Amino acid sequence: MSFYVGLVHYPVINRKGETIASAITSIDLHDFARLCRTYDIVKCFIITPLKDQHELAKRLLSHWCEGVASVTHPKRAQALETIVLAYSLEDALEEIKNLEKATPQIWATSARVRNHGKTISFEKARKLLADPTFPPVMLIFGTAWGLAEELFERAEYILEPILGKSSYNHLSVRCAAAIIIDRLFSGRDPNEMKRED
Amino acid sequence: MSFYVGLVHYPVINRKGETIASAITSIDLHDFARLCRTYDIVKCFIITPLKDQHELAKRLLSHWCEGVASVTHPKRAQALETIVLAYSLEDALEEIKNLEKATPQIWATSARVRNHGKTISFEKARKLLADPTFPPVMLIFGTAWGLAEELFERAEYILEPILGKSSYNHLSVRCAAAIIIDRLFSGRDPNEMKRED
Repeated sequence: MSFYVGLVHYPVINRKGETIASAITSIDLHDFARLCRTYDIVKCFIITPLKDQHELAKRLLSHWCEGVASVTHPKRAQALETIVLAYSLEDALEEIKNLEKATPQIWATSARVRNHGKTISFEKARKLLADPTFPPVMLIFGTAWGLAEELFERAEYILEPILGKSSYNHLSVRCAAAIIIDRLFSGRDPNEMKRED
Repeated sequence: MSFYVGLVHYPVINRKGETIASAITSIDLHDFARLCRTYDIVKCFIITPLKDQHELAKRLLSHWCEGVASVTHPKRAQALETIVLAYSLEDALEEIKNLEKATPQIWATSARVRNHGKTISFEKARKLLADPTFPPVMLIFGTAWGLAEELFERAEYILEPILGKSSYNHLSVRCAAAIIIDRLFSGRDPNEMKRED
């Protein structure tokens, strides 16, 4: 099974529930790149239809991957090489399809339960991802107030929300992604978890 | 058991291994506050000896907790109320001691194993934290290139490093904290983990 991450800037919703294109946050690129590199996820798609946002992201990436910073901070360059800019989710899926010679599934994430029929637990997700015959998966995260409804409709599965210890449910997308990727890929596989004491 | 988080800006090390005071990153305050609020951790100490950094942090907090933003983004204010500014680790520990009427233990975090004798696994840590008779714990995270050596010497325990799936080991402090807090406090307690299938 091949696994990809997508950070979606369009279509996402704002705090009024309207569909918008959000701006790229430079620290998201760094944090997602470092996270993906740590968990051996080779590509993280940054998805935005806005040309000026692509230009901005390219400048940021070239600063870290080509300039003086690539010498002083080689580990950061190594992480940022996982970042791929895409104009749309379709473009990203097409790129995965070409690489994998198989149609990827979209898995969505949300801070709340959206569609019970599609919701899967982290345990179930770990099991599917551990199956080498499973199709490629593109796990998508929403910036701003989260993914637009149409993406949940297109998704094959929606991961269960992270439940902390309180009713507060507003992690940053950086922290939510870190927790989700760790829950999906940390050393403990479902069988190991049963053996732990 | 009572649990506190500390984000240390001094003493930490820079990429040359020198002890420095790092600058506050505003997004750290937001991300740590949201993370602590989600996992019901009531206080997150931001530790820096620099007065101008306290002024900066106070301005940021008042913008979100008192200004227009507190009306438009009430959930952010609710999270940022967990943030407490402290001039030193000693000041933060003293505050905890006064609140808890007990001397807190320092638990340190690191991206690599520092001192085998003090290193504990997440499983062991979860068990200690689940014991209501355990002393208060202050879990500290280092900004910049990590906590200075003296803090590992003072710590009661050092949490085992997060191991991802690759040899790359450079998560942002925000993402590392999210993963660590989730591993310590997510719904699955050590006994539940054994029962899962």
